[in-house]
Amino acid sequence: MAIKKTEYQNALAKYHHKTSRSAAAFAKSKKYHVNGVHHNIRYFEPYPFVTKSASGSKLTDLDSNRYTDYWMGHWSLILGHAKAKVARAVSEQLHHGWMHGTVNESTLAFSESICKTVKAAEHIRYVTSGTEATMYAVRLARAATGRKIVAKIDGGWHGYTSELLKTVNWPFKTPESGGLVGSSNIISVPYNDIDGTLDILRRAGKNLAGIIIEPLLGGGGCIPADADYMRSVQEFTQKCGALFMLDEIVTGFRFRYGCIYPQMKLDPDIVTLGKIIGGGFPVGAICGKKEIMKFSDTNAHSKTDRAYIGGGTFSANPVTMSAGTATLEILKKNGSGIYSKIGLLGREAGRKITKAFDGRVVVTGKDSMFMPHFTQKSGIHKVKNASDAAKCDTAALYRYHFSLIARSGIFFLPGKLGAISDAHTKSDVSALIAATEKYAQNTA
Amino acid sequence: MAIKKTEYQNALAKYHHKTSRSAAAFAKSKKYHVNGVHHNIRYFEPYPFVTKSASGSKLTDLDSNRYTDYWMGHWSLILGHAKAKVARAVSEQLHHGWMHGTVNESTLAFSESICKTVKAAEHIRYVTSGTEATMYAVRLARAATGRKIVAKIDGGWHGYTSELLKTVNWPFKTPESGGLVGSSNIISVPYNDIDGTLDILRRAGKNLAGIIIEPLLGGGGCIPADADYMRSVQEFTQKCGALFMLDEIVTGFRFRYGCIYPQMKLDPDIVTLGKIIGGGFPVGAICGKKEIMKFSDTNAHSKTDRAYIGGGTFSANPVTMSAGTATLEILKKNGSGIYSKIGLLGREAGRKITKAFDGRVVVTGKDSMFMPHFTQKSGIHKVKNASDAAKCDTAALYRYHFSLIARSGIFFLPGKLGAISDAHTKSDVSALIAATEKYAQNTA
Repeated sequence: MAIKKTEYQNALAKYHHKTSRSAAAFAKSKKYHVNGVHHNIRYFEPYPFVTKSASGSKLTDLDSNRYTDYWMGHWSLILGHAKAKVARAVSEQLHHGWMHGTVNESTLAFSESICKTVKAAEHIRYVTSGTEATMYAVRLARAATGRKIVAKIDGGWHGYTSELLKTVNWPFKTPESGGLVGSSNIISVPYNDIDGTLDILRRAGKNLAGIIIEPLLGGGGCIPADADYMRSVQEFTQKCGALFMLDEIVTGFRFRYGCIYPQMKLDPDIVTLGKIIGGGFPVGAICGKKEIMKFSDTNAHSKTDRAYIGGGTFSANPVTMSAGTATLEILKKNGSGIYSKIGLLGREAGRKITKAFDGRVVVTGKDSMFMPHFTQKSGIHKVKNASDAAKCDTAALYRYHFSLIARSGIFFLPGKLGAISDAHTKSDVSALIAATEKYAQNTA
Repeated sequence: MAIKKTEYQNALAKYHHKTSRSAAAFAKSKKYHVNGVHHNIRYFEPYPFVTKSASGSKLTDLDSNRYTDYWMGHWSLILGHAKAKVARAVSEQLHHGWMHGTVNESTLAFSESICKTVKAAEHIRYVTSGTEATMYAVRLARAATGRKIVAKIDGGWHGYTSELLKTVNWPFKTPESGGLVGSSNIISVPYNDIDGTLDILRRAGKNLAGIIIEPLLGGGGCIPADADYMRSVQEFTQKCGALFMLDEIVTGFRFRYGCIYPQMKLDPDIVTLGKIIGGGFPVGAICGKKEIMKFSDTNAHSKTDRAYIGGGTFSANPVTMSAGTATLEILKKNGSGIYSKIGLLGREAGRKITKAFDGRVVVTGKDSMFMPHFTQKSGIHKVKNASDAAKCDTAALYRYHFSLIARSGIFFLPGKLGAISDAHTKSDVSALIAATEKYAQNTA
């Protein structure tokens, strides 16, 4: 333990030394902002560095330190930071206005791209964030079925919407927040455990409006769903008249040009998208079958019968639409190369991190996304759900990530999963492996 | 009545004739999107034109028709469309990345501007939309007080958040949407009616977490609050330990450089901002007193005690921060000129529209915001709340606005209030008056 402590304290000293401008700027940020941040998870001890600029796979902080970024804008930047072709599309759009506030042309090309490849997207409505998208998905499911109960996964993260703010963080039984009402209408089921899941869903029975699942548990530990599990849940919902909803905000266009659900042979009623599709600009999308989406049509339904879904002042704004279109064009044209490259790099990173820690970690993930779990003393040998992930030594993961930041110029948001972008190179990943090997040695 | 019908039908024929490309594009939009739109109110009969570009006070549609725009991006573009200085700030930011996903430098200057002039903004958290901001405000009020009931105004609009989706549209007793749960924790009070309001608030008593009010009822009819009313409500909430929250998403930086509440001598606990402060880019902000905002500090409170507020993947993204900073800089430097000019134009528009309709309309509003209400046969002589507004002939307003679009190249979102921007000129407003006089004659 003494060695571990020293490693962390060394890292801490190095960090303080090299980030003095960030320290001053973050102190200023705390003066203006709650805990200095605008997303709770962006805070880490002793203080997060303050980014000045970003390009390709790199972040540069106020002290001119460069970091190879594996956080990549909450995993939204699959092409890397400041991708030139996307920037050009946005610059061009700026000349034509960035906020029309009306139906605008730029939406059409974007939707055409999505509808062609996401078959469940028979109809789309754009909103401004993933949080809004999942809020509307739940509202729509309740309106379409006339039922109240919505099921989610233990450890499932669907943004900050009150509708799904339950059982996100371990221990799952503790409420996620003060100030919530209506949580009794949310139930939660164990991931990848079909018997446990169906037991709970059956008890909800004819009150179940739907279930929403991430096909790869993101915040909950970077854990892919078993296709068999997903198909069984889908079958149950279909039989009981509830909706099967997939939250592909993280996974959409992450592993292939389109969603991940066709590879699992699923047929969702609603799919939410976000992150990658907006090219790094604010976006959320509710996509679904026409027969479901029609419940949000104000021209087809009366005030009480329809789900009143937005999207809001900024929905379908031309800048997001243009950035999204440019991003999807690149992914469509070069997708096979990009996805195979980033998948290869991600799998290699996972394999070599596992090897470096020599039995101390289990790496979960899929292709370009990966996350190590320190299993020592946890009794966990396989991380198959968020409970397993939470029982691992999360403080050890935090220290590992922090050391990479402080000593090696490699940025993972401490404790969170990493994502490879097309801007990452073999040598980026080699540097990650080398730094990891060194850290593993120092803490062995 | 026959004359009115003819006027509308003439307008309809003209609109069909001049917007054939929009008709085709909107048909395509309906193929992909629920009712063809991404915000319910963007739809109007027979179909909305499709915007190709926007600049200054003008929108241009796919058929190259130009419209003087009084909708102005849901009233967010106080400097007009595609303001060059804002575009330059965004272009510059694009080179440095648009989605850092970490604490970033651009937030500091922006917050400094806001905190200096909005005294209630002792602490700020940025989110991605106004809908998110009001959702968090309610969650925070409930967490800070440990109470559940939140009061809003009949006809108050705070975005699509489930927390406040009640009593928005007349008739207020009908639910706004299917698929909502927890609405029983929202109560609603009559605007500008202090006795009626206090009666209802008293019944909630010690269960009242807070009240949220727009100081100018926006969607509900462009109706300014009486300062006395607001002070009495504030006094009541202070006495009963509930929060006094102002939704200044529409009014913030609309009438002066800052919020409108100091002019009413109010001292809110929480203020939500959005629209103008983002320069037309996606933004929401929860601002409040430190003692309240601290309830969202994850470092200061345990999971159950704190309000879990975001903001989300895109919160405080550098593009919105830069666009917002550039916008506030312009407003600070030239504010006295801008606000007096747009106020003058808005008041003149209101006065002359009133005159043109010769007793048929009452125009509500304040300075650069105005909205005519067709009071004939309604028995309404003064529009002092959303009920009064709803009892007016809203179809007549719709036909008037549509005629302006079809025959005069002037765009108000049919049925909604208008806003003057700094890009509008005297001759823009003269054209509006002339078109209105002609319409009033044709429908007299």
